[in-house]
Amino acid sequence: MSTGKLYGLGLGPGDPDLMSVKTHRLLGKAKHVAFFRKKGHTGQARKMVDGLIPTNAIEFPMEYPVTTEIPVTDPRYNEMLSGFYENVSVHLRSLTQTGENVVVLCEGDPFFYGSFMHLYTRLNHLIDVEVVPAITGMSGAWTATGTPITWGDDVLTVLMGTLPEKDLVRHMSDTDALVVMKIGRNFEKVVRALKVVDKYDDAWIIQFATMPNESIFKLSEMTETVTPYFSIIVVHGQGRRP
Amino acid sequence: MSTGKLYGLGLGPGDPDLMSVKTHRLLGKAKHVAFFRKKGHTGQARKMVDGLIPTNAIEFPMEYPVTTEIPVTDPRYNEMLSGFYENVSVHLRSLTQTGENVVVLCEGDPFFYGSFMHLYTRLNHLIDVEVVPAITGMSGAWTATGTPITWGDDVLTVLMGTLPEKDLVRHMSDTDALVVMKIGRNFEKVVRALKVVDKYDDAWIIQFATMPNESIFKLSEMTETVTPYFSIIVVHGQGRRP
Repeated sequence: MSTGKLYGLGLGPGDPDLMSVKTHRLLGKAKHVAFFRKKGHTGQARKMVDGLIPTNAIEFPMEYPVTTEIPVTDPRYNEMLSGFYENVSVHLRSLTQTGENVVVLCEGDPFFYGSFMHLYTRLNHLIDVEVVPAITGMSGAWTATGTPITWGDDVLTVLMGTLPEKDLVRHMSDTDALVVMKIGRNFEKVVRALKVVDKYDDAWIIQFATMPNESIFKLSEMTETVTPYFSIIVVHGQGRRP
Repeated sequence: MSTGKLYGLGLGPGDPDLMSVKTHRLLGKAKHVAFFRKKGHTGQARKMVDGLIPTNAIEFPMEYPVTTEIPVTDPRYNEMLSGFYENVSVHLRSLTQTGENVVVLCEGDPFFYGSFMHLYTRLNHLIDVEVVPAITGMSGAWTATGTPITWGDDVLTVLMGTLPEKDLVRHMSDTDALVVMKIGRNFEKVVRALKVVDKYDDAWIIQFATMPNESIFKLSEMTETVTPYFSIIVVHGQGRRP
């Protein structure tokens, strides 16, 4: 019996209409559908494919053993995640050995800060894996602001809010356009760094870009105090424009 | 009579299968199709929609009055391009005033270093404009390398090869993952900068990502001396991976 293929299937920023034709087609004929989620949640990726996968598809929710309960600097964090990725990789491999294809749902673009990469590095040398790129969450976010992100020779820097404040400040101070992801509990730190480099007044925050509950604010005008992890902050470039 | 809508339609990196479902649908019912091209060429964007737009669609090729004939620093460059964008904007607006929708084909993602932005800023306050995001050329490129671009807290910096060498070096020296676009005649300069910051041996160059003539090389192993403008160089991040 031949071995099935594993797909790292990029779903894009949220709106199913922004999925690629290829992703859409592969979802429609999926036999096995795997996706990451936090324990006790449906999972954003799974929600995005509602009505797009066959009703008889076999689902494999991969539940993170830890998300924000212990800090990433704790050695147990790496250990628990590593064991988890190892275990689900073994299962995904065994599924492909039945001869069936398996799709792994990936929010955004699989190779851009995605969890799928941890399965990819464990399986790519063992079985046939194909990665289908997708629109990144940040593309969805800057499009939602109605203002282009980069012009001419603009430098774009993408930063994670999880970085130390001094690193945020250094990188923010030497770029034209800026994207900050993984906000959540790093919100206050990111705001302080933006103020230090005098970019706070030009920053926008986008929550749930391209989804029905999308919200877009100038950062300085936002009144909410709790910010989802998947919020994205952007500062637009001001480069050459004939 | 009502006024039509102008779409900035992101086509993605090249493979039509990677276009969004939304872009695909809008192409299939397009009445007016506008696209940029260099004089005497078919235009990459136009080629990408071959067979996807209705045969009776009315095409409007927008031919750049100048591309690389005079340097961008020459005041005439800005003047010529500005007049050109102004003229085609007037025509696009008049097309929408017939009540028909008009799609403008955009390679990659329209708000990410795209020419469409120059029409958008001229028309957005006058007529109804919608921008449809797409997979960026750089996503297509890093997916083609078969290696994830960013992990954990990696910083990603996107640079244009058109920047001065000292700026390239400064930005390249303080990032984890790197993308360099607009290579072409800036190739030697970009290579020198990568060598200075000791990233040359880890760099990949991708030409025509996701297209039938796609080529992927370690930069140090490339033997060609002429590099297309739309080549993309990537250096992968090496961040946290449980």
